[in-house]
Amino acid sequence: MFLKNKIQLVLVILIFTVISSKAQTSPISNVKKSNKQEHPSLILTKVGVEKIKAQLGTVPLFDETLAKVKAEVDTEISNGIEVPIPKDFSGGYTHERHKKNFLILQKAGVLYQILDDETYAKYVKDMLLEYARIYPTLPVHPQTRSYARGKLFWQCLNDSNWLVYVSQAYDCVYNYLSKKEREHLEKDLFKPFANFISVGNPQFFNRVHNHSTWGNVAVGMIALVMEDDKLLETALYGLKTDNIDPNAKDNDGGFIKKKGQKVGFLANLEEPFSPDGYYTEGPYYQRYAMYPFLVFAEALQNVKPELKIFEYKKGVLLKSINTLLNLTDADGHFFPLNDGQKGMSYYSRELVSAVDIGYYFGGNKTDLLSIAKDQGEVLLDDTGLSVALGIRDGLETPFIKKSIDLSDGKNGDEGGVAILRANSTKRELSLVMKYSAQGLSHGHYDKLSFSLYEGGNEVIQDYGMTRFVNIQQKGGGNYLKENTTWAKQTIAHNTINQDETSHFGGEFETGSLHHSEKYVFDVSNPNLQIISAKEENAYPGTKMHRTMVLIKEASFENPYLLDIIKINAEHEHQYDLPYYYLGQLMTTNFDYIIPETLKPLGTKNGYQHLWNEAEGKSETSNAKVSWFNKQRFYTLTSLVSNEDDLILVRTGANDPDFNLRRDPGFIIRKKNNKDTYFISLIESHGHYDPVSEIATNAFSNILNLNMIFSNDEYLVISIETKNEQKSLFLFSIKDNLKTSKHQIKTQDKTYEWVGAYQLIKNY
Amino acid sequence: MFLKNKIQLVLVILIFTVISSKAQTSPISNVKKSNKQEHPSLILTKVGVEKIKAQLGTVPLFDETLAKVKAEVDTEISNGIEVPIPKDFSGGYTHERHKKNFLILQKAGVLYQILDDETYAKYVKDMLLEYARIYPTLPVHPQTRSYARGKLFWQCLNDSNWLVYVSQAYDCVYNYLSKKEREHLEKDLFKPFANFISVGNPQFFNRVHNHSTWGNVAVGMIALVMEDDKLLETALYGLKTDNIDPNAKDNDGGFIKKKGQKVGFLANLEEPFSPDGYYTEGPYYQRYAMYPFLVFAEALQNVKPELKIFEYKKGVLLKSINTLLNLTDADGHFFPLNDGQKGMSYYSRELVSAVDIGYYFGGNKTDLLSIAKDQGEVLLDDTGLSVALGIRDGLETPFIKKSIDLSDGKNGDEGGVAILRANSTKRELSLVMKYSAQGLSHGHYDKLSFSLYEGGNEVIQDYGMTRFVNIQQKGGGNYLKENTTWAKQTIAHNTINQDETSHFGGEFETGSLHHSEKYVFDVSNPNLQIISAKEENAYPGTKMHRTMVLIKEASFENPYLLDIIKINAEHEHQYDLPYYYLGQLMTTNFDYIIPETLKPLGTKNGYQHLWNEAEGKSETSNAKVSWFNKQRFYTLTSLVSNEDDLILVRTGANDPDFNLRRDPGFIIRKKNNKDTYFISLIESHGHYDPVSEIATNAFSNILNLNMIFSNDEYLVISIETKNEQKSLFLFSIKDNLKTSKHQIKTQDKTYEWVGAYQLIKNY
Repeated sequence: MFLKNKIQLVLVILIFTVISSKAQTSPISNVKKSNKQEHPSLILTKVGVEKIKAQLGTVPLFDETLAKVKAEVDTEISNGIEVPIPKDFSGGYTHERHKKNFLILQKAGVLYQILDDETYAKYVKDMLLEYARIYPTLPVHPQTRSYARGKLFWQCLNDSNWLVYVSQAYDCVYNYLSKKEREHLEKDLFKPFANFISVGNPQFFNRVHNHSTWGNVAVGMIALVMEDDKLLETALYGLKTDNIDPNAKDNDGGFIKKKGQKVGFLANLEEPFSPDGYYTEGPYYQRYAMYPFLVFAEALQNVKPELKIFEYKKGVLLKSINTLLNLTDADGHFFPLNDGQKGMSYYSRELVSAVDIGYYFGGNKTDLLSIAKDQGEVLLDDTGLSVALGIRDGLETPFIKKSIDLSDGKNGDEGGVAILRANSTKRELSLVMKYSAQGLSHGHYDKLSFSLYEGGNEVIQDYGMTRFVNIQQKGGGNYLKENTTWAKQTIAHNTINQDETSHFGGEFETGSLHHSEKYVFDVSNPNLQIISAKEENAYPGTKMHRTMVLIKEASFENPYLLDIIKINAEHEHQYDLPYYYLGQLMTTNFDYIIPETLKPLGTKNGYQHLWNEAEGKSETSNAKVSWFNKQRFYTLTSLVSNEDDLILVRTGANDPDFNLRRDPGFIIRKKNNKDTYFISLIESHGHYDPVSEIATNAFSNILNLNMIFSNDEYLVISIETKNEQKSLFLFSIKDNLKTSKHQIKTQDKTYEWVGAYQLIKNY
Repeated sequence: MFLKNKIQLVLVILIFTVISSKAQTSPISNVKKSNKQEHPSLILTKVGVEKIKAQLGTVPLFDETLAKVKAEVDTEISNGIEVPIPKDFSGGYTHERHKKNFLILQKAGVLYQILDDETYAKYVKDMLLEYARIYPTLPVHPQTRSYARGKLFWQCLNDSNWLVYVSQAYDCVYNYLSKKEREHLEKDLFKPFANFISVGNPQFFNRVHNHSTWGNVAVGMIALVMEDDKLLETALYGLKTDNIDPNAKDNDGGFIKKKGQKVGFLANLEEPFSPDGYYTEGPYYQRYAMYPFLVFAEALQNVKPELKIFEYKKGVLLKSINTLLNLTDADGHFFPLNDGQKGMSYYSRELVSAVDIGYYFGGNKTDLLSIAKDQGEVLLDDTGLSVALGIRDGLETPFIKKSIDLSDGKNGDEGGVAILRANSTKRELSLVMKYSAQGLSHGHYDKLSFSLYEGGNEVIQDYGMTRFVNIQQKGGGNYLKENTTWAKQTIAHNTINQDETSHFGGEFETGSLHHSEKYVFDVSNPNLQIISAKEENAYPGTKMHRTMVLIKEASFENPYLLDIIKINAEHEHQYDLPYYYLGQLMTTNFDYIIPETLKPLGTKNGYQHLWNEAEGKSETSNAKVSWFNKQRFYTLTSLVSNEDDLILVRTGANDPDFNLRRDPGFIIRKKNNKDTYFISLIESHGHYDPVSEIATNAFSNILNLNMIFSNDEYLVISIETKNEQKSLFLFSIKDNLKTSKHQIKTQDKTYEWVGAYQLIKNY
């Protein structure tokens, strides 16, 4: 360990020497140097501050936010300054204290500017001096878990958070400080700090990853304050040299850097964002990265407008804000694709920034104002002021989330995520189907997986991650081992598992090479919305094709979801398809046996975490499972053979630290199949009021679900309701052209249609 | 089966003959007969209707309710009349249809009176005629489960519901109908209906039970409309003869009737209500019974004011309204003592009636107006009008739920239920401790049990009942077998289990003979509230004494709960004390082993329904379990020996129909003990915000919990916090007098205090 660190140190010194000595041709220094910079200039600007002061007391949301922030900072000032020697993981005292410090410093800086009260400037100065006092002799953080340990925090990531915020505070009090004080702070704190998280940790800084985005932005922000163009260039384009081993991985199991990969802020903007503004790690991390992306973009726009950062990659940054807002349920919670902690929402401070900056720099789109109004606070800067003014003046329009298909990959050609939204009489049903690329180190092995929401409630859940962020009792608030052994595994998701193994063998390297392919996405008809995609690499030799259709028919209380999976394999396999419903099981229409003792469903690949609570077979061709959750009734009807195993499971096996929730699931298992189908239909069909004790529409409306025709090219599914209405869904498996004409002849009848699919009602 | 029914029929005819022929000395007919009665006169009155009409359009809440009711009834009228031949259990079509019919009939009657629109009267008439057409030839209901089958519904209970509501409708349209129509309805519908649920079912009618209350009131209401004093007398005093076998039980396992027991409405008012207005079956059934109790009281007050029904038993009816409102959590949900379905609240229609009637007849207590305002609707009668006027005029004052001790038993001397409420910085903590009598057939075997709430959230839950009322998929919406095998058993509750058996051997007969005894209840000091009670009959030869103290101390974020159980037994036994916490386990401070396969904890008395998820022992004298629920952290610290088994359990074993929730629990097991203590402390100590991802105060504040002195007379518990503050709780076990002086000498020190208990802070 000691030896390793020593080698690392030598390496760092070497790199540093190389960089320092090398003559640079800086793209930044080519740009005509701006005049001597005013302060503040990054987020707050001199002009902006004057505008804000002129409006104080007349813009309710701004004034309220200001009062709240002032109260918060005043409390902290009265508590006194605490800059403890770093010691703890996230959730622990020193971690939380330093985190609070940077958040308060940024706010205090803003208050100084807006309120012209030197109390705040002095507080910032005193605390910065305290940091400058301890920083020069701080060793790396004593917690050793990270691949890139910080000094104030256990990871460079959090150190970077600190610098992103504190740069703003420094900018705000810049003119309050004497030249000597500034020199001291820059020499003893900011420059070594920026060096440590960049040159000192190339494996952290020179990546395409949300970590590096923070690192790049931290360096870039302080560079802008200090007017250090060379440092700014490092932020934008990364370190010239890093000697990173192309096989090296971080502690989440992600690759550090591919050979020849571009790095730095612009590369981090270029690569993980698709042209649609989808961030490949998923919405939880997109949210996390949005703050540095946007706050740095704002700063660049203010200080280096000639870079036209908001126009970069066809305006992807502004697009991404809209994308992120669309990746939420009816309550504003992000869909927990890949690693994502449930409960995170557009009420987070990162999204307050995003919405305000998006409004200000993105052409004042009035639907953003309604989100800002819900958020109930604004940034205390030009952007926040403009939002608060818009709200004051009643300009907001509803933010309507539409059905949307978001491409993944730098060029938008690596699959994607589709969201189908269908209004019901009660609440919106939202289907999220994932057919994206791996999603870097936070990606899950869940090709063609889905989750289903009704309003803000999960109907079929995505488990999310196994981590309790910043809750120290649970592994220091870090990723738990069950994130790897359960949450990332395929069986933890509502998609096909072959032979009880995960997609790509659960290998990150292989997964990172592939993505699914869209087959059809069409939401032009609100009564029939469809997403269909294929995955041919997750299990070599096996092709999977999933088609999900949200159908609104008059005889159903709510739209229903038709779910069709076609599998073609070279060899015989076992296929498991789980549906992780939430709530209490009401009934099944098949018999099952409950075991006397509960055993895990398997031994590895996530199966070891599932208790097998019951197992049965269906005597009819339709297996039905009904459940009840949050006063609503649901039924899954699935076309099965009497050979299929129908298994009721629950998470929590082999979970010694009780890290997993105890959630139920229903697995349909087809054994010894080469080519097969999984065809199911999910209804939300009634509700119960525990106060009136009235149950309405508590039963499924489906009499029979059947596949009345199938061959290599076509399939026809019939959906018969209890009042004997029948609909037919016709689907072309191989030809997705809108204009193609199709014909099927059965014994009874000939069907003809145009395009990949057709629904015939009242057949 | 056939024979049995035949015998029943003969019996009924016999009784009927006896009653009909017997000369009656009626207390009612002794009262000077009122003049020829006006209609309406029961709930609506002629004078009242005029007053309502005069105010229409000026009283918002009344007007809104009226508009809502009108819209609902208009929809039903446009749908047409449906009176199906009875067939289904609750939740099924015919059940729900007839239920809807009686609710709509009552409303249509009211609308006719208030709006003077004959459409409504005609609708009532037409439907009544339809009922009169089918009733004479209706057999008893085809579902055979009930001990007292109805005709429209599977139980006489629901038939009685029907008549209680329909009597009001009849009263409203009485004058609209021709004499001939009235005679037809009374002869073919109302009289035989009233006869069937009384004379035809004495085992239902002649009881003290919520069922009979409904039966009595149904008969009483129709008697009042028809001015049939003889029938009214039957309602008030029961059938003179019934030949009920004193050993007979209903299908919930409750006794039908004790020998010599008084019956009828007045007896049902007399016996199950304690002088404090606590209804012995518990709040869920009190709520259910409140409607007939109060609506009949209102009718009696209007038609027979000379009976002074609201003054009966020192005004217990009005008292019981206040009691019931106090038996709710911060969200207005009833504590699920005994059989109670969670989610039932004071928003139910029964409580709308109760609050309005309570306000009108109980001296216009303005705190009831704030509940009525929350309810958002009023009765469409004099009482509702007065409430709506009060709200319109801004008279409401907050309804403050106080710490309260509610005696149980006819004379208030059969134990009780205590509620301690302590304000915290965040939300109110409420402790519900039950030391009552058995609670008739809906009682659970849970002497000295408790539940704990924080605001509207359960911290330590009472399981409630195992039934999904009116949800047909689950056993027709009726009680499930797990209600007996799990929910009623002692192990399903947060109290002591001896040798894995339930209190009183789970025998209703024995349980019904006993109740616990209060030792101390004192809430005079808001910083230390105490309830202490003893139970000496649940396990013959074993004395249990539980003391629960809610203590507010400056060094704790919230009040904490100190829980002390002292056990003295004649023989050695095993004692289990479960705590059914809700949420996700965070950590324990002791090691445990998780089994490879889950086995039930036992084989009977409810133990068969618990999975044993983990088992360990503590190496220190304090076992700690921390959990997280609804963004809050909790810790239980318990004084244990290293012999004690510490078991983590979950409900759901031997549950073939998935009728049970999968909820966690923590059991402390002490083996081979005669005399022992269970001493625990529960803290609510922090929160987590998934949007800011900040965990605050996530750890327990308790460094050490200890018993530093104990003998037969006294015990002293020390509570030491992490910042080394120590408090001592001194308790006198045998002398509860407020004035008694106590002295304990330990090696170090002498303690002196007055009264049963003392807390010494900063010791």
